[in-house]
Amino acid sequence: MNYIKLFEKIKEKSSFLCIGLDSDPLKIPEHLNDLEDPVFEFNKQIIDSTHQYTVAYKPNIAFYESRGVDGWISLQKTLDYIREVDDEIFVIADAKRGDIGNTSKMYARTFFETMDFDALTVAPYMGVDSVEPFLQYDDKWVILLALTSNRGADDFQFLKDSNSGESLFERVLAKGKEWGSKDQMMFVAGATRAEMLADIRNIIPDHFLLVPGVGAQGGSLKEVARYGMNDKCGLLVNSSRAIIFADNGENFAAVAKEKTKELQMEMKLYLTEKGII
Amino acid sequence: MNYIKLFEKIKEKSSFLCIGLDSDPLKIPEHLNDLEDPVFEFNKQIIDSTHQYTVAYKPNIAFYESRGVDGWISLQKTLDYIREVDDEIFVIADAKRGDIGNTSKMYARTFFETMDFDALTVAPYMGVDSVEPFLQYDDKWVILLALTSNRGADDFQFLKDSNSGESLFERVLAKGKEWGSKDQMMFVAGATRAEMLADIRNIIPDHFLLVPGVGAQGGSLKEVARYGMNDKCGLLVNSSRAIIFADNGENFAAVAKEKTKELQMEMKLYLTEKGII
Repeated sequence: MNYIKLFEKIKEKSSFLCIGLDSDPLKIPEHLNDLEDPVFEFNKQIIDSTHQYTVAYKPNIAFYESRGVDGWISLQKTLDYIREVDDEIFVIADAKRGDIGNTSKMYARTFFETMDFDALTVAPYMGVDSVEPFLQYDDKWVILLALTSNRGADDFQFLKDSNSGESLFERVLAKGKEWGSKDQMMFVAGATRAEMLADIRNIIPDHFLLVPGVGAQGGSLKEVARYGMNDKCGLLVNSSRAIIFADNGENFAAVAKEKTKELQMEMKLYLTEKGII
Repeated sequence: MNYIKLFEKIKEKSSFLCIGLDSDPLKIPEHLNDLEDPVFEFNKQIIDSTHQYTVAYKPNIAFYESRGVDGWISLQKTLDYIREVDDEIFVIADAKRGDIGNTSKMYARTFFETMDFDALTVAPYMGVDSVEPFLQYDDKWVILLALTSNRGADDFQFLKDSNSGESLFERVLAKGKEWGSKDQMMFVAGATRAEMLADIRNIIPDHFLLVPGVGAQGGSLKEVARYGMNDKCGLLVNSSRAIIFADNGENFAAVAKEKTKELQMEMKLYLTEKGII
């Protein structure tokens, strides 16, 4: 999916929501455990009840990989099912890969060829040749970690360069902007530091941001929209646990739908205020 | 496997070699392609012919993952086969994972429970909570990226903090040393910058280093031993392509064996010079 199409879908659905499918097999409702593939069944019901209100899904690969081969089967089925329900939903593999060139090329093959994801999250530590192989595909996206929403973000991301005065995360943004245009690169910027989105927008006015941390991690959607939205929206705001594990009983999908609609209604408000819809 | 045992194996085999199983399905000898699982058959023959001379194997997960479910099956079979041939070989999952705490916990489950690797390579960008979950296992290891051997290493790893004067990779070493003792943490330090291993040893005198970049990437084993070895060896030097793809014909395993023996003989010399054996 390309930039223009993504913006169109945001306007069409009045939503810039991404639902994180962090489908921990130990947390899904018990009544699903008798089924052949409980995780896929869980995802299917979540997708059925939420796809009208979201522009993106983001399976968190760790939760699939942890089950070995079975997990990869659930992941592939989930991706196929999303495409079947709506082939214009943006699907992100949240895998945070990144390695030397010949290895990143393999990861690109995994997520963009063997599986047909639209985007992959990538860790920047190893620099340009760890990112380039992912940029060789048309209409596929790298989502580079810049400023994350966890407490460990303080360990390295704010290290300030003695020559340029840039923080590490600012250098990641600046370099990333050189490596990939707004049509092929996004950046992760955590909602728990929403006020910093204004500074981030100074460096990358046009690129999309994938914003985790709304919900379970305590970030505010309002603040994210205020500081991070640009005139093409430029935001995908992710919510995972606050939607998919909002209820743990037989009614989980209906409750997830309500949570999703609430977020979507709030997003509609901010898109309207910005004059986008 | 613990630190003491690893050191014993190094002395016993007069080797600190790690063989990287970057078993690209497109590069393995053609005559294997008719078999049911060509990649596993390739690894099996490599393992058969080299295990006497190496203390570690390091499957590069990207090369398995790129084949989807089939790749994960080959990976599991490879790990099982290494354990069958010699259950005192150190096996590293080169996966460069790292994410917020609850996700890293899942990655730990993948590589330390679902699969029984001894160690996992981890990317440091997201800080302490992305590393901690891997440190909760007895006799399992985190191998944290510090200074990598690729050209993109220059993009971020040398950013120098204006307060402390530390480079990013130096801070990773210092923080990592706080997070994990020499019994549970190693660091990646590239052979292409062997002279820097002396500085690295000043920060972490006792921790093991996993050193990629000897061979295909141009690093010198002699220099690595000179600057990086400590009195418990403290080195695992990795070679991948220069061994496993040294020959592309039916004789590949025998040629790999010769290349491995050459490296092991050279390693024996440096271990002797250092008075370790």
